[in-house]
Amino acid sequence: MNDEYVKNIKNFVFESVLNEDSRLKYITLLGHIFDTKAILIIEKTTLELKDAMLFIEENGLFFELIEKNDIYHLFLGGIPFYDKKSPYAKITLIYPASEIHIKKYSRQSKCRVQETPEIYELYVKPYIETMKGPRIKWVYNILDHLAEKEHILYEYPDKENGFIIIPDLKWDQKTVSTLYYVAIVHRRDISSLRDLKKEHIPLLLHIKQAALDIIPKKFQEISQDQLKFFIHYHPSYYHFHVHISHIDFDSGDGMDVGRAYLLEDIINQLETMSDNFSFIQRTLTFFLGKKSDLWLNVFSSIMNTS
Amino acid sequence: MNDEYVKNIKNFVFESVLNEDSRLKYITLLGHIFDTKAILIIEKTTLELKDAMLFIEENGLFFELIEKNDIYHLFLGGIPFYDKKSPYAKITLIYPASEIHIKKYSRQSKCRVQETPEIYELYVKPYIETMKGPRIKWVYNILDHLAEKEHILYEYPDKENGFIIIPDLKWDQKTVSTLYYVAIVHRRDISSLRDLKKEHIPLLLHIKQAALDIIPKKFQEISQDQLKFFIHYHPSYYHFHVHISHIDFDSGDGMDVGRAYLLEDIINQLETMSDNFSFIQRTLTFFLGKKSDLWLNVFSSIMNTS
Repeated sequence: MNDEYVKNIKNFVFESVLNEDSRLKYITLLGHIFDTKAILIIEKTTLELKDAMLFIEENGLFFELIEKNDIYHLFLGGIPFYDKKSPYAKITLIYPASEIHIKKYSRQSKCRVQETPEIYELYVKPYIETMKGPRIKWVYNILDHLAEKEHILYEYPDKENGFIIIPDLKWDQKTVSTLYYVAIVHRRDISSLRDLKKEHIPLLLHIKQAALDIIPKKFQEISQDQLKFFIHYHPSYYHFHVHISHIDFDSGDGMDVGRAYLLEDIINQLETMSDNFSFIQRTLTFFLGKKSDLWLNVFSSIMNTS
Repeated sequence: MNDEYVKNIKNFVFESVLNEDSRLKYITLLGHIFDTKAILIIEKTTLELKDAMLFIEENGLFFELIEKNDIYHLFLGGIPFYDKKSPYAKITLIYPASEIHIKKYSRQSKCRVQETPEIYELYVKPYIETMKGPRIKWVYNILDHLAEKEHILYEYPDKENGFIIIPDLKWDQKTVSTLYYVAIVHRRDISSLRDLKKEHIPLLLHIKQAALDIIPKKFQEISQDQLKFFIHYHPSYYHFHVHISHIDFDSGDGMDVGRAYLLEDIINQLETMSDNFSFIQRTLTFFLGKKSDLWLNVFSSIMNTS
């Protein structure tokens, strides 16, 4: 039985690559076996602990330092019995590692949280206030042209509806398929989605239109309908900003529902809300890691009562 | 320079596994180098075409047939110069492959689409009507107890607010961390999110409560706050259903904003909408693959005019 199917696969004749994914490490090939079309999906197996341990225990393996930035060391590595010219794994060494690093790179258990308007007002808003000031000084530095001035793609300097579009640090500023900008607003009174009201619709529309006008002009390979606009709740910093990425950018869980909100959807919700309504009256549901600041400082203590 | 850092990594002493991911093929280790903590992240490299070609060209490699179901053949495979006991890749052979398979497994370019209420009414709704009837006979078979009856987790047989909770085919019905159920409603007049109105709030709440009551009782390892409830727009079939999964279930792009909507968010939007408003008046934004039926049959021809 087995032999027959193995014989089939050994008669596969390659025609073309249908798909590949560097994140998931697979490649999909089209070909034929005798006169019949066949598809072959080849995916690397899970990296198990015993394989990983080879990098620590064996002496015959090779390492090549690719980059070092402060405590972050990036290597390519091979294992003794694997083809010496092809790296088998990418290895990142963080050394010295602090407790914060250890927390950041550890698996977190998660839970579903409902943030009602009452919980927001009583517990979350005071927490957000503690996350401002010096913690977002780097944002003000960008807005005040004290940092990253040379990277600004576009600025509309208006105090009310103004913003700066600047490359996100996630982006290498070269690869168009992973293009990632962020639009940071000049006004400092919008901490997050929660503070958005009908009056902010022109600001949001202006951000979208500016990006649609400028980015496809700068990068001929990208069209207007290949840009994604989204915001995070909770965001990683509490000064309102909009993420702008290539439609193919794979952000892992950064596009997940319960974290990401499409800019267009937010605008449409604001447009169709009654005048006396805004996001401050919404119950928002999201998934929190139990090592996150928001869980530790806010939700862990109120989950029993909500 | 290089040597010094390679020396560091070779002195890494393993303490524990911080994290691992079988989908992304990485493992994160905590350890120390001399007296200082260090983190090692080891991730398999991209599967390149030349590596994949080894499986076709070389004779010394091994294949093991793991499963065969109709045209789908699953193998584990190794390459000649790699440890013969450890499989290097998981290989799926689809043979014979039809044009539909080839389309399904090919990379698609995507674009952002705005479905206004007008576009929905004029073009999308008629398309949805063509996707009913025989195409969702399998759904009616479940609801009528003609199929999968033995797998039903829970049924509330009411015609108005009734539904069946049944395992999704994605789930092996064993592994709790990938738990995946679907709640299919009995009424046949809700094709999708677009048809939801205030009057459906009790139905939605009932589905959520039933799952929260039953699933953690059946699986002691899972708590109520570890369940995710979401719906898709556009869904893969046009009969209203709610996805219920473990919070850790990694559905690739199935949880992406622009496709997935949290059940809680939908309920809250319905609750806070004015009485004469519903999702049929919303502009919905999503990302469509240019080989999808919805693109080919609907949006490709109207994108220039919208």
